[in-house]
Amino acid sequence: MGLPSTPAEQRWKHPPVVINLGLESFADSLREQGVVVHEVDWRPPPADVPRLLYTQQGTSIDAANVEALKRMMAGRPQIIGLGLARDVIPGMTDHTILHAGPPVRWERMCGPTRGAVMGALVYEGLANDPEEAADLAASGTLNFDPCHHHHAVGPMAGVVSPSMPVWIVENAEFGNQAYCTLNEGLGKVLRYGAFGEEVYQRLHWMADELYPILAAAIEDAGPVDLRAMIAQALHMGDECHNRNRAGTSLLLRSLGPALARTCNDGQRLARVLGFIDGNDHFFLNLSMPAGKAMLEPIEGIKGCTIVSVMARNGTDFGIRLAGEPERWFTAPAGVVEGLYLPGFSAEDANPDIGDSTVTETAGFGGFAMAAAPAIASFIGGSAQDALNTTREMYEICFSEHEHFTIPALGFMGTPTGIDVRLVMESGILPKLNTGIAHKEPGIGMVGAGVLRAPEACFREAFNAVKSW
Amino acid sequence: MGLPSTPAEQRWKHPPVVINLGLESFADSLREQGVVVHEVDWRPPPADVPRLLYTQQGTSIDAANVEALKRMMAGRPQIIGLGLARDVIPGMTDHTILHAGPPVRWERMCGPTRGAVMGALVYEGLANDPEEAADLAASGTLNFDPCHHHHAVGPMAGVVSPSMPVWIVENAEFGNQAYCTLNEGLGKVLRYGAFGEEVYQRLHWMADELYPILAAAIEDAGPVDLRAMIAQALHMGDECHNRNRAGTSLLLRSLGPALARTCNDGQRLARVLGFIDGNDHFFLNLSMPAGKAMLEPIEGIKGCTIVSVMARNGTDFGIRLAGEPERWFTAPAGVVEGLYLPGFSAEDANPDIGDSTVTETAGFGGFAMAAAPAIASFIGGSAQDALNTTREMYEICFSEHEHFTIPALGFMGTPTGIDVRLVMESGILPKLNTGIAHKEPGIGMVGAGVLRAPEACFREAFNAVKSW
Repeated sequence: MGLPSTPAEQRWKHPPVVINLGLESFADSLREQGVVVHEVDWRPPPADVPRLLYTQQGTSIDAANVEALKRMMAGRPQIIGLGLARDVIPGMTDHTILHAGPPVRWERMCGPTRGAVMGALVYEGLANDPEEAADLAASGTLNFDPCHHHHAVGPMAGVVSPSMPVWIVENAEFGNQAYCTLNEGLGKVLRYGAFGEEVYQRLHWMADELYPILAAAIEDAGPVDLRAMIAQALHMGDECHNRNRAGTSLLLRSLGPALARTCNDGQRLARVLGFIDGNDHFFLNLSMPAGKAMLEPIEGIKGCTIVSVMARNGTDFGIRLAGEPERWFTAPAGVVEGLYLPGFSAEDANPDIGDSTVTETAGFGGFAMAAAPAIASFIGGSAQDALNTTREMYEICFSEHEHFTIPALGFMGTPTGIDVRLVMESGILPKLNTGIAHKEPGIGMVGAGVLRAPEACFREAFNAVKSW
Repeated sequence: MGLPSTPAEQRWKHPPVVINLGLESFADSLREQGVVVHEVDWRPPPADVPRLLYTQQGTSIDAANVEALKRMMAGRPQIIGLGLARDVIPGMTDHTILHAGPPVRWERMCGPTRGAVMGALVYEGLANDPEEAADLAASGTLNFDPCHHHHAVGPMAGVVSPSMPVWIVENAEFGNQAYCTLNEGLGKVLRYGAFGEEVYQRLHWMADELYPILAAAIEDAGPVDLRAMIAQALHMGDECHNRNRAGTSLLLRSLGPALARTCNDGQRLARVLGFIDGNDHFFLNLSMPAGKAMLEPIEGIKGCTIVSVMARNGTDFGIRLAGEPERWFTAPAGVVEGLYLPGFSAEDANPDIGDSTVTETAGFGGFAMAAAPAIASFIGGSAQDALNTTREMYEICFSEHEHFTIPALGFMGTPTGIDVRLVMESGILPKLNTGIAHKEPGIGMVGAGVLRAPEACFREAFNAVKSW
């Protein structure tokens, strides 16, 4: 008790506690004197990773990245409507099939992507069954193309075929648009590589009933502000990649009145509301194009080392940099450490797949894990792991988000803007969380988990920056 | 670097860090030897607070409290329907007006309770204007009674008049029912003591349109599981007292399909969905009766020192113990430290008011602040304060909740079951968060904030336990 102690007394009461960076021998001699030493696991950047401040052309990389982050923060993605893929996605033809990740031909496609392509061809009426679809896919008459080459993003296999309905998300600040299909739910669904009657029927119902009812509601409601919705969801336990319960709830709330005004058939409306309520991932197919819409305006900023695209096709993992936006840097897709659905194990798992890493690229998803401690039940790990993941990702990001904040970290902005320089200097690779598809076509989801992005594509991208 | 160190080496590397409880001089001598000492601010219970293990009748208090907690955890509150107060609340007559908190006569009622009574009498058609209503209220012809005497709870002034619609919440495990009005929203609303045309019109619309549409939907949907909904909301940033954004969203989601099936007028349904979407506190009037329904089964457990009721009428703060359930222990209502709406300040504030402390009594609300770091924007404080509040409340609670858990604390159960013995032994008083009403009748909400329950009523209750 007694009077409060003076600063001098405080120093006497609390002997020094030392933080040691670098040589361990410094710590040892302090310990011999009874001092408590905490060692920080820090190493200088590897010798083959020079600090890049200017391109060879003399462009300031930091200035370029500041501009990129300014554009990312300024982006205002809004749902402005829905349409059929063939009608609204630029460059989509009746024989185009889009897929997630970097380019890949049929021969190198993984099982779930093949399964999703086969299912989509049957759904389109271009084949009578999966076998016929596989023959058609191998025939060379179809145009396979990455979603990312068409301003689109697709979760998991990410297959988009011409008659699928898609969300149209526009960045109100820059005018660019992004597209994504409607989320089917979990389990035996096309995006996890499943096909069969159950899958086709659901897709047809989504096109015939869900799509027109949602489209009418959006037309009635006017643009829906997705940046505000993501920001809110991050305050409600979502990270908006593998947990979208809050986002889905907020979307349903905000569309409810317009849905009631525009759909005069109570049974149809009940089915639509029930389908969305039954699928906590429904919002994922909006958080993804929102991320895409916020990222595209940074493409082409000269000297910018921020990752503008990070995506996987289940065979390859690929990234693109804003400063060289057309070029893919790829590496083999990684193995996911995860939790498996009953009856499945790691042996059934396909490597990492999907465009959903657009969320991490845009400053949420796995990078905002600290906002979603409850996600542990879906992908494994503890609440502390979730905090640690976000804290670690600050090391490789150029900034903190102005609009996306994390209450548990004192409302700090999420780590935003992966800088390939920081990845290489720190040796810290982006940490992702993801669903897991069965490696064979036709089966579907088997689990969910976490992994790191592969180093090789970041190294290759970093080497490219040296020559800019 | 080198090989991992052995446990013996670890001990050598990390000199002891000592935690000191009690006498400071122990710490001083260790510090002189260079040891780091952390002191814990712990004191033995005050001399006038004996450790009570058995009642004078020989009943084991711990055994009684174990039984109480077992009942609280087993409770399964469900919405089973809606009805008009006069039809469903036991003991309600055409001249009964219920209010929050312990009993209080018109003469001692605070401004907002008076305002709410006056507004309710005009709404009921029993008076033509607030002045006439005040005369009627003072005439002695009305029965004023606490909500808690009728299995009901009311936020803020908590006024329930005969023709108001109420939720009927049944505890499916024990069969008891609890009742609460529908939430009006924030600002100029009856429960904050406001009256006037805007208030009456809203109440009439709620009775004429909102109530029948919700009642039909609940009849169609069947019982709605509120325990599961509160548990989910606690994983989505709500504490279900002053933050109910997730709960409101989850309720809307789950009722959506039934609302669509049973309401065939799209414009009316749109107004109902829009009203609920526009009021993030809508779920409060369900989390409160859910708490009440879970608490009532502990009333009458012999020797039980768990608080079964904690409520304020804006004049007095009152608690009741499960072991002596009919008796109120009261003290003057406290002053709230808070954030004020533009144009208002602490000078406008009425003391603490409302039955909403039923949430803390039932193991959520302010006691689950750690689940709701984003609440800082509503009631002030930081995310760290929120964690600290929950951690502190474990000190005065008999148990942790089995069904209500906090992701950020590693899914630990919320502190549940306020034990008057622990309150007195620790000197820690329940921490509450609350809205703030204007002290004059007729105005409404002016802010929100936090405060501690007053010690006097806990001391009085503790002294009563000594004589059991």
